[in-house]
Amino acid sequence: MASDSFMQAALEEARRGFEEGGVPIGSVIVHDGRIIGRGHNRRQQLGSAVLHAEMDALENAGRLPARVYRECTLYTTLSPCAMCSGAIELYGIRHVIVGENRNFMGAEAHLRELGVTLEVLQDDSCIELMARFIREKPELWYEDIGR
Amino acid sequence: MASDSFMQAALEEARRGFEEGGVPIGSVIVHDGRIIGRGHNRRQQLGSAVLHAEMDALENAGRLPARVYRECTLYTTLSPCAMCSGAIELYGIRHVIVGENRNFMGAEAHLRELGVTLEVLQDDSCIELMARFIREKPELWYEDIGR
Repeated sequence: MASDSFMQAALEEARRGFEEGGVPIGSVIVHDGRIIGRGHNRRQQLGSAVLHAEMDALENAGRLPARVYRECTLYTTLSPCAMCSGAIELYGIRHVIVGENRNFMGAEAHLRELGVTLEVLQDDSCIELMARFIREKPELWYEDIGR
Repeated sequence: MASDSFMQAALEEARRGFEEGGVPIGSVIVHDGRIIGRGHNRRQQLGSAVLHAEMDALENAGRLPARVYRECTLYTTLSPCAMCSGAIELYGIRHVIVGENRNFMGAEAHLRELGVTLEVLQDDSCIELMARFIREKPELWYEDIGR
């Protein structure tokens, strides 16, 4: 089990993605103790090159004023890539909770340099789901990270 | 007039965005001398928090193997923000032509550090269109860059 209910919600999104045959990464955005956006990677499902989980959650949260983003915490089951980290930077999100970074290390160092607080849970459920996916569909995974 | 036909195509996208009442930034992605993706900022039109012009062009180009991105040149009428620069980094795009950076300076320094070749045209048509938009709709513009 993921260690808190918001990461659990992100993991539910990731599992939904897995069941859909997609890249199993999920994300939720929390403001004032409430989920205001949630999503999962849609590469396979929508043929999308930009809807990583974090981007999908941002998209589903809708247009928000800068003030709100700055009070949000973003949860993601996997360390955020350069694109998603760039979105975090653009919108000034200050807190990011990462399910794990064993299967992929994103732009965490860059985010920390910008003053973003990152917490990495190394959650077993997140690690196992992602490891299984990479083992089963390596081509889809490497396409997703531009390799 | 924009100084080359690809920037002209990006500017056409930007103008379409302006006519639609949106943020007038356009982008095209060129591979092997041919436009393979084009788009413009869709914040206003689709209520999108992630479809900046460059992201829209990437999305419209569809899923591509890493090899193709590395051979692409991305044209954008305005200096790419942190999110779009992160997408350029993720996909390993090596060449970026920027219409102008007078109205907004994006993450050009970061891209250059990564070895991306950037050329900034300071194109008068790009500058004037963006300046007019910022003057007429400052709230939409500042929302778009998370300020």
